[in-house]
Amino acid sequence: MEPFSQVELQLAARNHGMPLEALRYPVTPAGLHYLLIHYDIPAVDPAAFALTIEGAVERPLTLSLDDLRARPARELEVTIECAGNGRALFPIRPVSQPWLSEAVGNAAWKGTPLGPLLAEAGLGSDADEVVFTGLDRGIEGGLVQAYERSLPLEEALRDELVLAYEMNGQPLLPQHGYPLRLVVPGWYGMTSVKWLTRITVVDEPFTGYQQTQAYRLRRSEEDEGEPVSRIFPRALMIPPGLPSFPEREWTLPRGPTRVEGRAWSGWAPVQSVEFSADGGGTWIEAELEPERSRWGWRGWTHEWDAPPGDHVLCCRARDSAGNVQPDEAEWNVGGYANNGIQRVRVTVD
Amino acid sequence: MEPFSQVELQLAARNHGMPLEALRYPVTPAGLHYLLIHYDIPAVDPAAFALTIEGAVERPLTLSLDDLRARPARELEVTIECAGNGRALFPIRPVSQPWLSEAVGNAAWKGTPLGPLLAEAGLGSDADEVVFTGLDRGIEGGLVQAYERSLPLEEALRDELVLAYEMNGQPLLPQHGYPLRLVVPGWYGMTSVKWLTRITVVDEPFTGYQQTQAYRLRRSEEDEGEPVSRIFPRALMIPPGLPSFPEREWTLPRGPTRVEGRAWSGWAPVQSVEFSADGGGTWIEAELEPERSRWGWRGWTHEWDAPPGDHVLCCRARDSAGNVQPDEAEWNVGGYANNGIQRVRVTVD
Repeated sequence: MEPFSQVELQLAARNHGMPLEALRYPVTPAGLHYLLIHYDIPAVDPAAFALTIEGAVERPLTLSLDDLRARPARELEVTIECAGNGRALFPIRPVSQPWLSEAVGNAAWKGTPLGPLLAEAGLGSDADEVVFTGLDRGIEGGLVQAYERSLPLEEALRDELVLAYEMNGQPLLPQHGYPLRLVVPGWYGMTSVKWLTRITVVDEPFTGYQQTQAYRLRRSEEDEGEPVSRIFPRALMIPPGLPSFPEREWTLPRGPTRVEGRAWSGWAPVQSVEFSADGGGTWIEAELEPERSRWGWRGWTHEWDAPPGDHVLCCRARDSAGNVQPDEAEWNVGGYANNGIQRVRVTVD
Repeated sequence: MEPFSQVELQLAARNHGMPLEALRYPVTPAGLHYLLIHYDIPAVDPAAFALTIEGAVERPLTLSLDDLRARPARELEVTIECAGNGRALFPIRPVSQPWLSEAVGNAAWKGTPLGPLLAEAGLGSDADEVVFTGLDRGIEGGLVQAYERSLPLEEALRDELVLAYEMNGQPLLPQHGYPLRLVVPGWYGMTSVKWLTRITVVDEPFTGYQQTQAYRLRRSEEDEGEPVSRIFPRALMIPPGLPSFPEREWTLPRGPTRVEGRAWSGWAPVQSVEFSADGGGTWIEAELEPERSRWGWRGWTHEWDAPPGDHVLCCRARDSAGNVQPDEAEWNVGGYANNGIQRVRVTVD
């Protein structure tokens, strides 16, 4: 792995992954969920906060937090993963957040569904996409910008999209978008716009920086690339045994050990998780726990009879649409969507 | 700055600092407080949890969480900073958590005072130190160990020490020591043992790894060094203006701008904070906000009339015992206690 620069470290010191042992919690506790914030966490006065719905609509709306809370509410567990998860595991990477494999979390998001709000505003017949704008602002690619992303209309109208004001039964934390964020189940996290303040219905594809420059799977700098969208399947395990500091290598005693983890896919339900104790040479099916939520991760366990020696433990997920984790994901310029299988080196005494 | 290794990145991806804009919150919200965890966050069953007080005492005690909650409670705001804060800003550093300057947080800790518990157990006449043992275990320096630290008896008997079960009005989060941690106001964070399960009164100085190998200010590998103890003064500012991604450089418009931050010292109350807009060439006294808690940080502000150009903004704290932040802190092998002044490069348009 190439050494890391100060710029990468600056990002790693403020954004953070979910420590892998936190895979033990079905719902990720506050502060352990991954975070990726492009600019600074904005200071928001909830009394002055308003969400506007405008653009190609018949009746533009302005809604306070109280207005939003008075509307029908829905709570659902959603696993959100950063599109850049695994970036630092690619052989070549751009200067950005240097994720290993922990950029994920599963939370219970409560808010009001987006679809009925768009219906109330009245979509114009020329409506094509919906643009979501956050209150966070900064400079990226030389452009002063608010963080903004769009969704095609059919995605924006999915039943499961909520404008969330609670996470795990509490008001959103500042770093997770207080007071309001979009939650798009199944999509990488860049789409679940935090500090959401404006929804604009547009009549042609949105060409903002985060849509057309960032978050694309480019084979080369010249390649326009496909947009990053839904989350590819991934399984992660809690590394078993005692960790060393600072190396984070694991040691465990020989004999039966229960290996556990979680798996998810934004494309289709998880169908199976496999475990390997020999670096992916041979695979054995793990046991799946019951599904808690279509849009959340699924627990899995495997009873491993650990023999003495050094081993490379792996796991991989497959979804019911036939997507399976590759040994190594295809490289791309932005370092996105690296869902290559996890490898955990352990020593058994 | 020397590039960073994979081992350092692995630590930075799971432990994290407090994003500097979170200096705006008098009490650091959940998940924004810094975290440094040597091993893994332990899974604790609160019903089975017990704290024992043993060793050189007349009446060993075993206390459940309910027992602890039934005792007199005290809540106080305490700023905790990692002893390794600033490590990566030293020209040479050991392989450990590569902190820049954000390893801090200020929380309201509620728990039961330690002193009365020790009195109830009855200190033996030969009592010398008190050892605090956590439930977190790992391998460090080649030794399998639970995380343990001691305090001299006179420090352990200070009024302000609490065994905390709440942080900011909520049960401790798993990563902050659920269900119980020691909080030692004024000392660097390594002393506020998390997942506290055993208190042992000993009749001679404790020689555990975290006491005699780690957390010492050594001038060379051979130097035994002085133990790290209380927090040296530090002031930090919120970098003003718009940040760039991924570089995290700041741009702001010319004219009046309010620079704000916090300052603290574990040795004595903060007496003054100074601000410099020319890299520390000239200093001007900032305005201090009222003290919220002797053991918490103190807010400060400065109205800066920003002229066009590139500037290096600095701040430094002085406490009433005469300790002041140095331009550059004295180097030590472990990279501890680097309280050299913060430098923030900004461009004014």
